[in-house]
Amino acid sequence: MSLIVQKYGGTSVGSPDRIDRVADRIAETSGDGHDVVVVVSAMGKTTDDLIDLAETIHPDPPKREMDMLLTAGERISMALCAMAVEKRGVGAVSFTGSQAGILTDASHGSARIVEITGTRVKEALAEGRVVIIGGMQGVDPLKKEVTTLGRGGSDATAVAVAAALGADACEIYTDVDGVYTADPRIVPDARKIDEISFAEMLEMAAAGAGVLMSRAVEFGRRFNIPIHVRSSFHDRTGTWVKENTMEQAVISGVAHDRSEAKVTVRSVPDHPGVAAAVFEPLAEAGINLDMIVQNIARDGSTDISFTAPISSIDKAETIAKATAEALGAEGVSVERGVGKVSLVGAGMKSHPGVAAKVFSTLSDEGINIEMISTSTIRISCVVDATRLDDAVKALHAAFELGEAAEEVVTA
Amino acid sequence: MSLIVQKYGGTSVGSPDRIDRVADRIAETSGDGHDVVVVVSAMGKTTDDLIDLAETIHPDPPKREMDMLLTAGERISMALCAMAVEKRGVGAVSFTGSQAGILTDASHGSARIVEITGTRVKEALAEGRVVIIGGMQGVDPLKKEVTTLGRGGSDATAVAVAAALGADACEIYTDVDGVYTADPRIVPDARKIDEISFAEMLEMAAAGAGVLMSRAVEFGRRFNIPIHVRSSFHDRTGTWVKENTMEQAVISGVAHDRSEAKVTVRSVPDHPGVAAAVFEPLAEAGINLDMIVQNIARDGSTDISFTAPISSIDKAETIAKATAEALGAEGVSVERGVGKVSLVGAGMKSHPGVAAKVFSTLSDEGINIEMISTSTIRISCVVDATRLDDAVKALHAAFELGEAAEEVVTA
Repeated sequence: MSLIVQKYGGTSVGSPDRIDRVADRIAETSGDGHDVVVVVSAMGKTTDDLIDLAETIHPDPPKREMDMLLTAGERISMALCAMAVEKRGVGAVSFTGSQAGILTDASHGSARIVEITGTRVKEALAEGRVVIIGGMQGVDPLKKEVTTLGRGGSDATAVAVAAALGADACEIYTDVDGVYTADPRIVPDARKIDEISFAEMLEMAAAGAGVLMSRAVEFGRRFNIPIHVRSSFHDRTGTWVKENTMEQAVISGVAHDRSEAKVTVRSVPDHPGVAAAVFEPLAEAGINLDMIVQNIARDGSTDISFTAPISSIDKAETIAKATAEALGAEGVSVERGVGKVSLVGAGMKSHPGVAAKVFSTLSDEGINIEMISTSTIRISCVVDATRLDDAVKALHAAFELGEAAEEVVTA
Repeated sequence: MSLIVQKYGGTSVGSPDRIDRVADRIAETSGDGHDVVVVVSAMGKTTDDLIDLAETIHPDPPKREMDMLLTAGERISMALCAMAVEKRGVGAVSFTGSQAGILTDASHGSARIVEITGTRVKEALAEGRVVIIGGMQGVDPLKKEVTTLGRGGSDATAVAVAAALGADACEIYTDVDGVYTADPRIVPDARKIDEISFAEMLEMAAAGAGVLMSRAVEFGRRFNIPIHVRSSFHDRTGTWVKENTMEQAVISGVAHDRSEAKVTVRSVPDHPGVAAAVFEPLAEAGINLDMIVQNIARDGSTDISFTAPISSIDKAETIAKATAEALGAEGVSVERGVGKVSLVGAGMKSHPGVAAKVFSTLSDEGINIEMISTSTIRISCVVDATRLDDAVKALHAAFELGEAAEEVVTA
């Protein structure tokens, strides 16, 4: 007998019918003799609807009350799921994050999990019951305040719970079949990846692959919990994210991201400390920077560029302008119409020439590269947003990631 | 400075606009220098919608999960109300029943308040903040399970909180102007009652006047908390429910109730213990009996009739049939089409002849009385449901309770 943690996203529990299907699967897993812990998101668009309601009432709602509000969403879906499982003759009990002992820090809206006690979860499992936990939520044990983990929080809850309970696997049920070599809406011959390492998945997630959030993958890697990303609409195997993968592809996939904008501080006097002077106030303001590029100095001055989420770009611009003035820089420009394309693969470490091939591929397509950033297993380029899809398609084809390309190889 | 508890029902917080109006009133009360504690129901039809959702999924949803589900409703409205108050520059914080220290027994769906600690409520008030509490909900401190109080629970929360905090008054905001001498939908000249005693209000509530539930009135009476039932749509005074009222009308009002049915156990052998034999199994099944009438024995046998909520009448019939068989009674009949009309007034104690006038009034209208039950300040008659409105109108007119009648008196 093993312990399985299953996570169902908002689409999977979006209606009574879908909850019934989820309950069938849970009851089946339980019937197979496994202990089952389930983590659920709020139904369908509930969270978005609640955010809209709040913003109708307050343009900048207090975060503490926002957490109180949003946690109602998972409360509804977890109770309904428990009822649906009970109806199938399988004992079930729902727990809030607080009841499940998911202890977090006090950062409302973006709390970090500090510890999972799981006392009541273990008791209920020992009694032979399925446990349904509301995702994304926890409690700050000092102030006894309800918190939420922010974007991707339910995935993080699931993997963290799996780690705390020593689960054998964590299944993330979603509305797609798994992790793809590229977004199939852009690249029709994109291929589902059967296995991918934690490190590659982390890079894919950070580069914009939305199917699984970085935080969840980080938990998986840290506690070595295999994650199975799969569809809640059928039984086929999805993508396994794990420590050591059987297949060792040179390139795993192409990810893209349209959620960022680019800020450039132009002609900053080039002397030690200017980068710190630019980025410290941004960090203090809590702005999440992604790529940072500093050009070679010309005539004693340099350009410093960075990307950040569009949602915080106005704040970033204001701060950068103040810094630019203080440093005697020429000015600040903001470019909203940018996109980022990333090639990810653990094999590129041992295959020189991948970066060169990326650049020549984009060049052949007439796509201008505005910024470059690399890790040992990822190459990212910022390009004009209007050419982003072309860039994804070109790289996917050039590195033969599609199903058609694979057939050619095996033929 | 005084402490005011305000309770807003589902209609009063049914939309963002209405929540804004509620917040205006709260901010105004706070601005007048009062400490304010607010109890809110779920928005509009949220509770009904959640019940429907649950019943789609499970024909008889587990009560523990039902409480988990339904408490999401107040969680949403309390957070939104706190945001709306904050927007007006007044500090506010929302608390669940559990956070507010509303301790109950373990009866999911019909829990009773055992104690209100209110620690966090007092702390927040001391910090100068308005406290918004989710109505109807509490926590069983032994099992740490969320509970709900059942019908009328939010009113009970409000008055109990007012009692626990030693509030100066408890204002119940609703979508009607106060307590009326009769339902204005049936009796157009029904008059708003300015003051009514706890005892009379209890009888009115028990007799079907839906504006305020018995449980809330009981708390008010026990802890002597004046309750002001008023409209959330304007500032006019509503009805004060209090210990000693200035006006001492002979008759306060006419209440009616369509929610019950009548069961008769026919020709029960009349010997000591038969009533106990009939009613003990019903009590054990948790059926709430209202009126009980036993006719005079004829030929060594008697008829025993009772009324109970329609929702439990099938169960009551099954139990009564088993008892009837065991006792050798002739049989059991059930009448669903009945209504109850009640005349309530503290003054009737000292005015003989009220009962006689009730019976003659109904008789003059050709309305047959099927059952009678009285207390010192109430007379109730069960009549055919099709004649219930006529009975209410006739009694309201006969006892001159309407505005027109009052004008005649003062003219």
